[in-house]
Amino acid sequence: MDAASEQCEDGLQVRPISVLDFEKGYMDLLKQLTAVGEVSGEEFSRRFQEVMSAENSPYFVAVIEFEGRIVATGTLLIEKKFVHQCGSVGHIEDVVVDADMRGRHLGQKIVNFLTSHARRASCYKVILDCNEKNVKFYENCGFYRKEIQMAKYFD
Amino acid sequence: MDAASEQCEDGLQVRPISVLDFEKGYMDLLKQLTAVGEVSGEEFSRRFQEVMSAENSPYFVAVIEFEGRIVATGTLLIEKKFVHQCGSVGHIEDVVVDADMRGRHLGQKIVNFLTSHARRASCYKVILDCNEKNVKFYENCGFYRKEIQMAKYFD
Repeated sequence: MDAASEQCEDGLQVRPISVLDFEKGYMDLLKQLTAVGEVSGEEFSRRFQEVMSAENSPYFVAVIEFEGRIVATGTLLIEKKFVHQCGSVGHIEDVVVDADMRGRHLGQKIVNFLTSHARRASCYKVILDCNEKNVKFYENCGFYRKEIQMAKYFD
Repeated sequence: MDAASEQCEDGLQVRPISVLDFEKGYMDLLKQLTAVGEVSGEEFSRRFQEVMSAENSPYFVAVIEFEGRIVATGTLLIEKKFVHQCGSVGHIEDVVVDADMRGRHLGQKIVNFLTSHARRASCYKVILDCNEKNVKFYENCGFYRKEIQMAKYFD
């Protein structure tokens, strides 16, 4: 088993996303998280190429597949800073588990996989923003409350 | 005046960072924000090239110079997502104003400059994390409380 994928005890595998995951309902799963809009296979492929295919891409998307469908995902974006000895920070984004697959610790597997990737990429910390009801979940993943997220939306 | 710089009423100019700003105390200013360590001019130049010089770099660092020193800065990192119609999000990071220059609204000028850049780059929102004592400042910049930042540090 290499570092790029991880077998769960229930046979479900956490692995990096593939461009073929569009056909396995990756975007449909994201709709359970937030507004997605209508993204065609072509638009997906274009964005995938743009963010994932670059050498040393700062993006790393983890997925779990079950019976031919993507049922859990999360993204890590690695930010290169000047502070902390020109250190790197991992930002965990867009974590979602299919509503029918909750209670099987898939979210924790995704977060652990992303966190391990951040550690391998020499990040000095991993951060994320979540709502109050998910604080406990992330505490169980080894995170703790730090600051306050502020947002500004454009029209 | 082009979009790349902005004159403030007191003559101080907000502009994108230059590699020459190392000599003007850019890293010393960051030490007022967090741990920086000892970063040589060569290390700074290497990281600068790595993150700033790429075509369509997702990084945009704003600075204000006063009497030959960098006295305020902030960074925008643009994240390309699959959600929100393959939309982009601006992350504001590492905002700091020199302790001797507080009360002159330099922080607000930096944040507004970064926010304008995010808007031009078609971000649908800008987000940041701050501690409780800076919430009011960011509210004055048009941001509002959204979620909770969680963090995990590596040893």
